[in-house]
Amino acid sequence: MKTLIKGAVVVPMTEGGQGAGGTGSGAGETWFVGSVAWEGNKIVYVGPDGGGGAEGGVDEFIAANPDAEVIDGRGRLVMPGLVNTHTHVAMTLMRNAMDDVPLMKWLNEKIWPLEATLTPDDIARGARVGIEEMLAGGTTTMVDMYWHEAAIAKVVKEEGIRAVLCPCFVDGEKMADFEADLPETLAVAEEAGGRITVRIGPHAAYTCSPETMRRGIELARKHGLGAHVHLSETQDEQAIVKERYGCTPTEYLRDQGLFELPTMAAHSIHLSDGDIEILRGAGVTAVHNPQSNMKLASGAAPVVKLLEAGVNVSLGTDGAASNNDLDMFDEMRTAALLAKHTAADPSVLPAWEVLRMATANGAEAIGMGGELGVLAQGALADVVMVDVTGPHWFPAENDPVSALVYSAKSSDVCGVWVDGEARLRKF
Amino acid sequence: MKTLIKGAVVVPMTEGGQGAGGTGSGAGETWFVGSVAWEGNKIVYVGPDGGGGAEGGVDEFIAANPDAEVIDGRGRLVMPGLVNTHTHVAMTLMRNAMDDVPLMKWLNEKIWPLEATLTPDDIARGARVGIEEMLAGGTTTMVDMYWHEAAIAKVVKEEGIRAVLCPCFVDGEKMADFEADLPETLAVAEEAGGRITVRIGPHAAYTCSPETMRRGIELARKHGLGAHVHLSETQDEQAIVKERYGCTPTEYLRDQGLFELPTMAAHSIHLSDGDIEILRGAGVTAVHNPQSNMKLASGAAPVVKLLEAGVNVSLGTDGAASNNDLDMFDEMRTAALLAKHTAADPSVLPAWEVLRMATANGAEAIGMGGELGVLAQGALADVVMVDVTGPHWFPAENDPVSALVYSAKSSDVCGVWVDGEARLRKF
Repeated sequence: MKTLIKGAVVVPMTEGGQGAGGTGSGAGETWFVGSVAWEGNKIVYVGPDGGGGAEGGVDEFIAANPDAEVIDGRGRLVMPGLVNTHTHVAMTLMRNAMDDVPLMKWLNEKIWPLEATLTPDDIARGARVGIEEMLAGGTTTMVDMYWHEAAIAKVVKEEGIRAVLCPCFVDGEKMADFEADLPETLAVAEEAGGRITVRIGPHAAYTCSPETMRRGIELARKHGLGAHVHLSETQDEQAIVKERYGCTPTEYLRDQGLFELPTMAAHSIHLSDGDIEILRGAGVTAVHNPQSNMKLASGAAPVVKLLEAGVNVSLGTDGAASNNDLDMFDEMRTAALLAKHTAADPSVLPAWEVLRMATANGAEAIGMGGELGVLAQGALADVVMVDVTGPHWFPAENDPVSALVYSAKSSDVCGVWVDGEARLRKF
Repeated sequence: MKTLIKGAVVVPMTEGGQGAGGTGSGAGETWFVGSVAWEGNKIVYVGPDGGGGAEGGVDEFIAANPDAEVIDGRGRLVMPGLVNTHTHVAMTLMRNAMDDVPLMKWLNEKIWPLEATLTPDDIARGARVGIEEMLAGGTTTMVDMYWHEAAIAKVVKEEGIRAVLCPCFVDGEKMADFEADLPETLAVAEEAGGRITVRIGPHAAYTCSPETMRRGIELARKHGLGAHVHLSETQDEQAIVKERYGCTPTEYLRDQGLFELPTMAAHSIHLSDGDIEILRGAGVTAVHNPQSNMKLASGAAPVVKLLEAGVNVSLGTDGAASNNDLDMFDEMRTAALLAKHTAADPSVLPAWEVLRMATANGAEAIGMGGELGVLAQGALADVVMVDVTGPHWFPAENDPVSALVYSAKSSDVCGVWVDGEARLRKF
């Protein structure tokens, strides 16, 4: 089964691509009016219309593939599926349950008591809503950290989103839950044919003792897994780790050997220059969560500094309890605005760089750079189509990369394919 | 002609209302499951279902008004229309034309050269797109400042949004354009039967000399008009005014007599305590434009301080060239997030207060407090209906005021009425 979208604005997110239409507002990114085709779960054609693409032009492609479904791309934009690299998807259950209160009050009086009552069935229910929200908004991959990931894995399999699932652990009795959850999650992942991968989810430096970390890392090594951790989200975390171990959370996690695993570090706000150098040297991805960080007043991650240092920075929504949605378009816009505001410089973190954080950098974060987060021949067919005819897209001839970040809405998404399979068809 | 929405979540934005459902996340605001009805352009019924509203309950209302259109409100929320108190609606023409560059480069290389070429027809075309965007997103009133407002007024009349139109002026030859535009705009406003009002639009302290201000204020007095000005948007503005007049922009505008007119001051970022006291004493509204301010790295307005001081603070998108949309839901969310981030305190500017800025405070800003921006008997029927069945609204039983600010999208808007007349029906 082949599918072709013809005559759309194509934003491939590949550097130095075949672009004929123009460059993004920053540099390096190209877009063009052209076509994208896939067969099974792989992209087989990307090229500008009338310009003779990689395989001799779209008309030749159509002639050679008379059985392909051809979708009219006019008035539409095609881009790689968005990669949400930090969420707790089941926390849709706690959306808008208690807002505008200090973090510890929120955790102590609402979130933790609610979480203590959650069954795997509840978690599956929350996950289903969150996955449907993400797919509707153009997110085709999520990186999730939570309890009972095996229950979430079953929903992921049914809903057909791509996922990296990270069973969470902390000190205490929950460690046994993790040790039960991990193999169950791995078993479901195995049935999902590559669409689900698994990582360990050590909660954070202040909630995982050296012994807890050792047990988690040992399991990761046994199964060949990466890691996903919260890092330096609050000043409280900095103070606790400093008092307990005499170092920064980054140093602590490095010293436990965590960064010997492929690691993604959510939040990554309160980082010293030395911490940034540690992350760069170890190839750790910093996951930026601007809306959650602003809403909980945690601070602004040093995104520009991290990127300049050569750290891979991706983007995530965090859970719906602290955001309060799973909308990556919203998140892209906020990332751009917060960086400019923080630097007092409107030229930092241009639109194309934010879009890269939400696509190609997200793929890199989960070890799938080049395979995912780009529209390129041979890459996986995680494809999103966006309606660009709404008034907020006017005038359509201006920069489509800027438009995606500053004007687009997740509700403009009108087509979503994961592994080449349609998950949303609003056309 | 009577219209009734029955069985919806009603967010009336009236203090101490008839609420039976619960209070907003902060304090003071109530919501309930109930009904709203209007006849002509006036709201005639607001009350909780089954609770016996102001006139004896919705069933009695329906029995007494068999000719009313009854709209099923289940799965929907009803709120006052949003009031966008600062925009340059025709700047949709320049949306995404040049982003991620420093302010002066943006103005010198793109915006001002483009503006120099605009005809009244161009401006009307840009305004039409912007008004359609706003109506689709639940904005029922806009406060606009631009050149050729008479051309915009004609589009406003056709599209049926409510508007305060503010012909702009600066030093130099454009003053003559303003003096021609003002009476023309007033003439169109007169034909619009109260839906359009007019104010003078002195651009800013650094672009209007005392003589220019005098001429503008004189015309305002002659026609009984208020004013809409840009205030303390950038540090450059502060420095120029300090050098030229030895005072702050706020002091300068007060000294010219501007604040003797009902005045709205957009941006209002770099304010001293003395400036805030001047605004409070003169009853000037500060219009917050968080997305534009972040995108251009202008700074964060002292919203919490202004509100605590007793200054009326409303909300506006600014133009689409610096935002880059006219989406008040987006703007509400950003206002809440930026305030918390700036204060390093997640409890400031709670959702209900942001929603008030976008509704009741906006009405207050344009001299229509009580008449607009609330759902109350006798108020104008500017009504917005929102679909609350999307996954991002789950679970629907949680705080609907939080949901409106933190989770809702402008695309959830499924019904819009201005002066009781339907402008959007997506149900």
